[in-house]
Amino acid sequence: MEFDIKNVDLAPGGRHRIEWASQEMPVLKGVLQQFQAERPFAGLRVGGCMHVTTETANLMVALQSGGADVVLCASNPLSTQDDVAASLVAHYEIPVYAIKGEDNQTYFNHINAIIDHKPHIIMDDGSDVTSTIHKDRRDAMSTVIGGTEETTTGIVRLRAMAKDGALEFPMMAVNDALTKHMFDNRYGTGQSTMDGVIRATNYLIAGKVVVVGGYGWCSRGIAMRARGLGGNVIVTEVDPLKALGSGDDGFLRDANDGSGSFGDIFTSAHRRHAISWTKHHFEVMKDGALAGNSATFTSKSTKPRLRELSIDDPAYGRLWNSSPKTGVSQPARRRSFINLAAAEGQSLQCDGI
Amino acid sequence: MEFDIKNVDLAPGGRHRIEWASQEMPVLKGVLQQFQAERPFAGLRVGGCMHVTTETANLMVALQSGGADVVLCASNPLSTQDDVAASLVAHYEIPVYAIKGEDNQTYFNHINAIIDHKPHIIMDDGSDVTSTIHKDRRDAMSTVIGGTEETTTGIVRLRAMAKDGALEFPMMAVNDALTKHMFDNRYGTGQSTMDGVIRATNYLIAGKVVVVGGYGWCSRGIAMRARGLGGNVIVTEVDPLKALGSGDDGFLRDANDGSGSFGDIFTSAHRRHAISWTKHHFEVMKDGALAGNSATFTSKSTKPRLRELSIDDPAYGRLWNSSPKTGVSQPARRRSFINLAAAEGQSLQCDGI
Amino acid sequence: MEFDIKNVDLAPGGRHRIEWASQEMPVLKGVLQQFQAERPFAGLRVGGCMHVTTETANLMVALQSGGADVVLCASNPLSTQDDVAASLVAHYEIPVYAIKGEDNQTYFNHINAIIDHKPHIIMDDGSDVTSTIHKDRRDAMSTVIGGTEETTTGIVRLRAMAKDGALEFPMMAVNDALTKHMFDNRYGTGQSTMDGVIRATNYLIAGKVVVVGGYGWCSRGIAMRARGLGGNVIVTEVDPLKALGSGDDGFLRDANDGSGSFGDIFTSAHRRHAISWTKHHFEVMKDGALAGNSATFTSKSTKPRLRELSIDDPAYGRLWNSSPKTGVSQPARRRSFINLAAAEGQSLQCDGI
Amino acid sequence: MEFDIKNVDLAPGGRHRIEWASQEMPVLKGVLQQFQAERPFAGLRVGGCMHVTTETANLMVALQSGGADVVLCASNPLSTQDDVAASLVAHYEIPVYAIKGEDNQTYFNHINAIIDHKPHIIMDDGSDVTSTIHKDRRDAMSTVIGGTEETTTGIVRLRAMAKDGALEFPMMAVNDALTKHMFDNRYGTGQSTMDGVIRATNYLIAGKVVVVGGYGWCSRGIAMRARGLGGNVIVTEVDPLKALGSGDDGFLRDANDGSGSFGDIFTSAHRRHAISWTKHHFEVMKDGALAGNSATFTSKSTKPRLRELSIDDPAYGRLWNSSPKTGVSQPARRRSFINLAAAEGQSLQCDGI
Repeated sequence: MEFDIKNVDLAPGGRHRIEWASQEMPVLKGVLQQFQAERPFAGLRVGGCMHVTTETANLMVALQSGGADVVLCASNPLSTQDDVAASLVAHYEIPVYAIKGEDNQTYFNHINAIIDHKPHIIMDDGSDVTSTIHKDRRDAMSTVIGGTEETTTGIVRLRAMAKDGALEFPMMAVNDALTKHMFDNRYGTGQSTMDGVIRATNYLIAGKVVVVGGYGWCSRGIAMRARGLGGNVIVTEVDPLKALGSGDDGFLRDANDGSGSFGDIFTSAHRRHAISWTKHHFEVMKDGALAGNSATFTSKSTKPRLRELSIDDPAYGRLWNSSPKTGVSQPARRRSFINLAAAEGQSLQCDGI
Repeated sequence: MEFDIKNVDLAPGGRHRIEWASQEMPVLKGVLQQFQAERPFAGLRVGGCMHVTTETANLMVALQSGGADVVLCASNPLSTQDDVAASLVAHYEIPVYAIKGEDNQTYFNHINAIIDHKPHIIMDDGSDVTSTIHKDRRDAMSTVIGGTEETTTGIVRLRAMAKDGALEFPMMAVNDALTKHMFDNRYGTGQSTMDGVIRATNYLIAGKVVVVGGYGWCSRGIAMRARGLGGNVIVTEVDPLKALGSGDDGFLRDANDGSGSFGDIFTSAHRRHAISWTKHHFEVMKDGALAGNSATFTSKSTKPRLRELSIDDPAYGRLWNSSPKTGVSQPARRRSFINLAAAEGQSLQCDGI
Repeated sequence: MEFDIKNVDLAPGGRHRIEWASQEMPVLKGVLQQFQAERPFAGLRVGGCMHVTTETANLMVALQSGGADVVLCASNPLSTQDDVAASLVAHYEIPVYAIKGEDNQTYFNHINAIIDHKPHIIMDDGSDVTSTIHKDRRDAMSTVIGGTEETTTGIVRLRAMAKDGALEFPMMAVNDALTKHMFDNRYGTGQSTMDGVIRATNYLIAGKVVVVGGYGWCSRGIAMRARGLGGNVIVTEVDPLKALGSGDDGFLRDANDGSGSFGDIFTSAHRRHAISWTKHHFEVMKDGALAGNSATFTSKSTKPRLRELSIDDPAYGRLWNSSPKTGVSQPARRRSFINLAAAEGQSLQCDGI
Repeated sequence: MEFDIKNVDLAPGGRHRIEWASQEMPVLKGVLQQFQAERPFAGLRVGGCMHVTTETANLMVALQSGGADVVLCASNPLSTQDDVAASLVAHYEIPVYAIKGEDNQTYFNHINAIIDHKPHIIMDDGSDVTSTIHKDRRDAMSTVIGGTEETTTGIVRLRAMAKDGALEFPMMAVNDALTKHMFDNRYGTGQSTMDGVIRATNYLIAGKVVVVGGYGWCSRGIAMRARGLGGNVIVTEVDPLKALGSGDDGFLRDANDGSGSFGDIFTSAHRRHAISWTKHHFEVMKDGALAGNSATFTSKSTKPRLRELSIDDPAYGRLWNSSPKTGVSQPARRRSFINLAAAEGQSLQCDGI
């Protein structure tokens, strides 16, 4: 069996955690039992490109129990849990291609490894597998029956392809399920984003001014949880109806970016967020302000902006724009950026990561 | 039996409401039964100067059941419930001197009527009976055994007298009871203040910016309930520790009155409030802003300020500084003031009213 | 000009309040100015059957400013504000047929008075005008161009008619607007329901156990505001997805009516509510429990149930199932029922009233 | 320089984190600058027994800047951050005696190492240094000038000693400071307890029933944050006034342990908690229930109870009462116990840890 993971010796801890997570997934447990009895996927290959976490692991195991020949890669280079990847390989014999922190080249090599598997069914999270097959790996096209896509962003891409007549197999829009966008996006992303902030910073949230970019389902969850932890939340939103809703939910609305100068923590959950990470915004932020993005890994649009601001590596562990080493002079004003999905040990997954 | 009330014919409705209120006062019910058995006040005259409401009525009935010869006047000219006064007179034979909206002269005539009764025990709410006896009615001094005082403001006055050796009988500080300042001031004043705002204005609170003056026990309750109704709350507080607490409770702190220009509703719960009602403050308020005071009836310090702003009558029903009659030109900017205690039918009592 | 209202002398107070409300309706103000310039309704008769309140009054005035010949009756016999009706007649020359507390016969006479007006456009709230024209007043059919319907319940009736091919003119479903069901149903009904409870009962909500029937948009608002006022909220909901949402919003879910025995306040916002007012439910309620309905006036299905429980008149002012007069023995257990829409002076309107 | 820490090579990461924390401690920064100028502790030895964390490190550095000869050991074997201990030794030349997870014998050896230092001033957190000097190390008594004690528990012990005339030097009760019990106990413990639960379990709190034992300052914070994260909170409290307050704050009160059977998460913040960890309580808990204690390390009273329940090691990482290894039969019902202070990487400190 081929695979590409960090260290197979991490498997015992991973299994421990996969089993712990399964205790909190009673519906999937029921589905697994039905799958074991009915074997609906017998003879089918399933290629998943998802966050390699304990929850995904349980999903993979359920599909395998249903007869599927499963293979998995990461949809985000930063969220992979290496012990979980190890356990899937060692205990469940599921080939995994995912290493936390992998570089861009490795990321795409792993996607191609999934495609080499010639999946009948694709489980996509951002539509990278789907678009790669359409563009570069047409050799794998004929065996694909269809697939699922989890994120808003991915669905936007697929709908554009479908409209142009370019989508050559059917994809189900998982994000459209009420249980996805009303629950996962709101409660899941809400808790995990604030959890990411706490793990990366050790901040007491009570008393902090938290500026939430946008008021979509994810940002609603972030705003709700930031307030629940004692933060004072200001929402920036350009859509009038959502802005109205944020005010009626009791959040101060900031129509003209005035909060830039007194916010302590700035979050965003979408590439097209109301706080766009321009040089201007970072410049008005006060000393010690913290900006975090829970929606995407180091995106093409974010990186140049951060470089422009001398924040050369946005990953967790390199939080500010100048070396904090003792004896080295600090800049007059620190402005930090966190990729929240990468906060060590963060608890849950964000939708668009 | 002498008394001075609005209309004894209102008695049936008053009794109905007194009995309804008694259902929600289980502890007082138990006390009443004990009093009926033990008659601890037999032979004693009790003079109460309190809000003449259904709750006070039940307290008076309990004292009467304990053998007391009870007489009652109003501690606030605006909070008197005329039907309750009527029922106390008609059904319980308790002399009441209180008419909603009574003028200053009548107010003090009523206090003197209580003193004419030569009370052994005084139940004061603002210390007007106590100070009148000490200053103008020394003829009633010899029969007084002592009394109780309910408000922070009254206690401040009494402590000053005691310090000067001028307080000639003992007074119990009811406000110091945990069940008073932690519960009545916070939960009671909190709900009733926002209730007063809604009754006076018919506003939807969701989406409104509510500026709360101070962060004492009353203001904490107001802030809590304003947020609970969907308002975005900003707290102005000069005491550093209380200001810190307001921030940690998730409220935006306003150190330099900046919220004056964008607040929708301004509340205060104390004479020495952080938002002092100066000309300056009213002038920066935006069009349609509303200021309300739940702490005191038309005080000596408030009235001249309001007149200076051309707000000639702060009582409920005359909300703004120019006649709203159709055809009469409105001022460019409306700034309203409500005495929240006077909002028609307001549900509960504020501590310092 | 014909009309049927309580007392035209109430007009000045009504005008005062209509103008106050207009200050909080900036969008309608803008629409009115556009209407004055463009006169889009010139030559058209509009027949409204709506809650006769200050807000509706401003809507009628705006339509009139647009050239419409407007006539208005009440969609609920209990919500009419008699002073507003008087002002519309006296100051705006709009014929109104609405008297607070009118009986069923008068209610339908008033609907017929609107139809006598031969409206081109109908503004319905519960679809009583529309269904009366279709069934009993076909003489008015030919002049109708179409209309609007505001409530979920009314839309359900109209959709059934449309499906059967029985709806003879087009109706717009106002309730489908996001600003209606996401805002009015949630924030409006939420605040006004709790406001109705407080006005009817004078309860301190803090510390009360509030059982909310269902978790639709209205009930979500009620649950949110009951918690915001310090209540501990339990939600009963049979739809699994909504039940899941209520739990994730932090409310205790009650799957098996177990809360019946310890709830203090029971609300419902729909005829098909999760707490159906059966004898069983009232019987398990504890002494002093209070049930309120903010969704509908004394409905056909509610009345017999209440009679069965010896609660002969559910309107405000007759709150319990036995006379509370002093000297009359009380029942061992009081169970009260409030029609929240009828609470004297209640601030806002509920959707389905 | 003598010291006893895990690994001095961890120092760079520790310094990085100490400096990060200092950015959030502006008051201490100001104090440090004053200390540098005034050197108030010149010639004095200070022995601290506290949580060895980034915040304590900054306190030690400030004292050192004021001229103190500082030495530090751990007040809790589980909360020590080994990288911080290493940095204090390597970069600041402060002797530290603390290793995360140290056993009881090592713990007391480290306390004796502090005493060997012959401190003039003691900074105690649980009063172990103070009581050891009084009982076993009277050789160090003569040089002690006095000290500080941080916890409620420690102060109770010291007050008892003082009452018996047994306390031989003065101790300041830090916990009595408003900024300590109103802020640290409430906001600090509140966030860190829920953070500990999330780190140990990866649970989504939204929708969970959280049973909070007691309603003191710490438990108030836990209840507030558990609700803020979407939990439905039930409070068990035997003190009537605190129980009343918990209800008025909107939490369901559980007078008779009825919540034992349906709670998902049980917390406690005191040795004398309302939920006492008896066999009875664990037995009624439902399958998967989780009990956590954020108040104390493996206390003398807790350990035997846990052993009785076959939960042999309550530390993080061994969460349940039977091995979770695959292939080993699970018990019918899992009941887990977490020492929240020991959750890997938990963000903040609890008062009584």
